Amino acid sequence: MPYYTAIVSLLTVAFYFFLATRVAVAHGKFNVRLPATTGNPGFERVFRVHMNTLEWMPTFLVPLWLCAIYLNDIAAAVLGLVWIGGRVLYFTGYSKAVEKRLPGFFIQSTAGALLFVGALVGIVLRWSSG
Amino acid sequence: MPYYTAIVSLLTVAFYFFLATRVAVAHGKFNVRLPATTGNPGFERVFRVHMNTLEWMPTFLVPLWLCAIYLNDIAAAVLGLVWIGGRVLYFTGYSKAVEKRLPGFFIQSTAGALLFVGALVGIVLRWSSG
Amino acid sequence: MPYYTAIVSLLTVAFYFFLATRVAVAHGKFNVRLPATTGNPGFERVFRVHMNTLEWMPTFLVPLWLCAIYLNDIAAAVLGLVWIGGRVLYFTGYSKAVEKRLPGFFIQSTAGALLFVGALVGIVLRWSSG
Repeated sequence: MPYYTAIVSLLTVAFYFFLATRVAVAHGKFNVRLPATTGNPGFERVFRVHMNTLEWMPTFLVPLWLCAIYLNDIAAAVLGLVWIGGRVLYFTGYSKAVEKRLPGFFIQSTAGALLFVGALVGIVLRWSSG
Repeated sequence: MPYYTAIVSLLTVAFYFFLATRVAVAHGKFNVRLPATTGNPGFERVFRVHMNTLEWMPTFLVPLWLCAIYLNDIAAAVLGLVWIGGRVLYFTGYSKAVEKRLPGFFIQSTAGALLFVGALVGIVLRWSSG
Repeated sequence: MPYYTAIVSLLTVAFYFFLATRVAVAHGKFNVRLPATTGNPGFERVFRVHMNTLEWMPTFLVPLWLCAIYLNDIAAAVLGLVWIGGRVLYFTGYSKAVEKRLPGFFIQSTAGALLFVGALVGIVLRWSSG
């Protein structure tokens, strides 16, 4: 059973939940009253950090687990940690300015791409030896 | 194999799909024409119910399945049912007024937190017992 | 292990990532500057294609994998391919006009409904024989 990837998945969920609390705080700070989610660029940047992380969840979690199951648990978990690190940088950067989202974004998308390749290699290897 | 959690997952998807149909109905009722998803608070509340439920899908489904696989199927399934119940209350409340979303929200977030703890305990227990 | 469904899942992620790049291009083409995601109907249609596909990820991926694990890998994978096909049509249609999203939408929702039924049948069959 993939223990490392399971722990990294919980860490992902914990960080993602933390981002949701940042949106809740930003609603108050920038005075954007629910159900509205627009109206202030400062709020919208925090909102976009959370939403973009949600948008990437399938792109991250599906290859993460396929890589863990079909190739290697530890390799998947390490790339998962890099992904979370990129997302932390994306959050701190984007909260300051739109352009500052890019370094973190490229780190997490590189980790995502490697997980995709790892998953593909793992599936093909097991299939052909199966 | 986790049968109870599998059934509760299908129930989650069915309820989530029901919420999507409420958004479709609200587009007509409040005269918010696609591709717009803003412009009327009554519409936006229904839209936010659906969107917030989507936002919580990773936060719910990942711990739900880790709890089912690493700890206990029935415990995960019962907490999953509580989560769905909280989400039903969140929908009926938020549809009426922004403040009325809170009781259902706290029920579902408590169920989510317990699933997270259950998953963590399950992973650590199995790991340490080899 | 479900090899076909694993490959179809990677294909889903690849197509979904392609849609995200279409949103990035549309930000430039229709001059909608981040963090804004509204302000031009042409942009908003592409944005909605990506967002609606995200909205359907739980509705698609959960039954897809339950169908693959509890019923049959190849059946799930074939329906998954039909779902992707419907999503391609939804993208090309919706990019042109709001009404043209419907044929692709019905193809993907039919595939999703069949996966849901397949998952339910698979769970019940295994349970009762279990």
